[in-house]
Amino acid sequence: MGEMDFSKKLAAAMRRNNSLLCVGLDPDPARMAGRDVGAFNKAIVEATADLVCAFKPNLAFYEALGNPGLRALEETLKAVPRHIPVIGDGKRGDIGNTAAAYATALFDVWGFDAATVNPYMGGDTLEPFLSRAGKGVFVLCRTSNPGSAEFQALEARAPGGGEPRPLYEWVAVRAMSWKSAASVGLVVGATYPDELRRIRSLCPGAHLLVPGVGTQGGDLEEAIRNGLGTPQGGATIINASRQVLFASRGADFAEAARRAADDLRKRIQDALTAARKG
Amino acid sequence: MGEMDFSKKLAAAMRRNNSLLCVGLDPDPARMAGRDVGAFNKAIVEATADLVCAFKPNLAFYEALGNPGLRALEETLKAVPRHIPVIGDGKRGDIGNTAAAYATALFDVWGFDAATVNPYMGGDTLEPFLSRAGKGVFVLCRTSNPGSAEFQALEARAPGGGEPRPLYEWVAVRAMSWKSAASVGLVVGATYPDELRRIRSLCPGAHLLVPGVGTQGGDLEEAIRNGLGTPQGGATIINASRQVLFASRGADFAEAARRAADDLRKRIQDALTAARKG
Repeated sequence: MGEMDFSKKLAAAMRRNNSLLCVGLDPDPARMAGRDVGAFNKAIVEATADLVCAFKPNLAFYEALGNPGLRALEETLKAVPRHIPVIGDGKRGDIGNTAAAYATALFDVWGFDAATVNPYMGGDTLEPFLSRAGKGVFVLCRTSNPGSAEFQALEARAPGGGEPRPLYEWVAVRAMSWKSAASVGLVVGATYPDELRRIRSLCPGAHLLVPGVGTQGGDLEEAIRNGLGTPQGGATIINASRQVLFASRGADFAEAARRAADDLRKRIQDALTAARKG
Repeated sequence: MGEMDFSKKLAAAMRRNNSLLCVGLDPDPARMAGRDVGAFNKAIVEATADLVCAFKPNLAFYEALGNPGLRALEETLKAVPRHIPVIGDGKRGDIGNTAAAYATALFDVWGFDAATVNPYMGGDTLEPFLSRAGKGVFVLCRTSNPGSAEFQALEARAPGGGEPRPLYEWVAVRAMSWKSAASVGLVVGATYPDELRRIRSLCPGAHLLVPGVGTQGGDLEEAIRNGLGTPQGGATIINASRQVLFASRGADFAEAARRAADDLRKRIQDALTAARKG
């Protein structure tokens, strides 16, 4: 990980594997029949590395396991081929000197190619991430959870006045305006297809990281259609975690994960072909 | 940590030490003259434990140091007397099953009495924190950084219409409405005294965690005045990190930290007496 420009590495992996699928590496011991987390993830990575454009470990699942969890994350990262980018999903956000410590943790200690961040505190707090040339930064915009409207859908306007627009649109537009050496993308849930289409129209060049297909019920084909940009524009990266990792709880879990990942990969490619035909 | 109800433990520590000061344990090796992080923190904790109402390690500083940093956090937590509550400052926020993993990490793996969380994704995502009876949850509301207005000060209204109010007020009011077994407080920077006063008027019963005095330039006396609630209302907890930890970089760092903490503690108590007199 980490040595090559994130956007170039992502584009190369997309081409090589003909894939927009990102597999989320979110281990849940309760579904892993006593298997070692590091070994489980290594098997998943080896079974799917030629089918994905990225992997995305969510740090929460490793932190919840304490020190053994963090060792498992190390093992997991070692198993990822160097040509596949890895997105560290931590949704961090904090003030300047603290955000700098998080950027160090994600990009230098762990060596991730990209990271997810939370915009609530303002763009100035994300500067330690944005200043990292060659890295990717995915800003939470419209998240996939059922209650994401509580704040993200509020109609917001500048204190001086002006036309109101939903908060998630503010985040999208402001994120595109931030001075950044890193590649700035957005996290948009497949569970909100209209918002996804709107965000794509506002941000044609941004990579969109799209969770929420599968377990959460988002429509994959609609997400691809609504996330489609210009040919030179940003990619729509479809993340799947549980439906790949836990496709089988038996000894065939890795082969089942491979089948599930390849099915998703093909569905994405078919949807992309259909969407491009218009 | 962790065995006793957070609010009761906080109230007891406030009374015992006659203090509203929280010392932020945010180690920065560049300012620690080669000292071991765990040993440094232990010395700070021992020098200030009778002067504070809480300690608050920010996880970023430990994560930035990799595994040795996490071991230092373990040592630090062991050094804190059981009657002083510890707030885990991680500003986490993620969807349901992931948020549950973060709550496990903070409350069960680390054993914190309270945690800071980010509201952007909506109250449903905080449920694994809010459902924890006996714990404290501090929701980011108006943060201390210079750019916090970018989103937090937007004038927001419900999609159907209604009177607009700043986003940070929405967060404060919604946070108070969330069904919660935990004690719900708010993070409000001392750098925004008018907003602090407004939040206190909206949320008289909430504990306010107030960073931003000292290095960031917030006025301590004004924060106490504006954060003052009813006698039975929520406390205004003043956090100080760098100005205590790095009061001296010499061998006398712990004694210097003690002097800095006691000075802050007394200033807070004086401001409180003055504010109560009106």
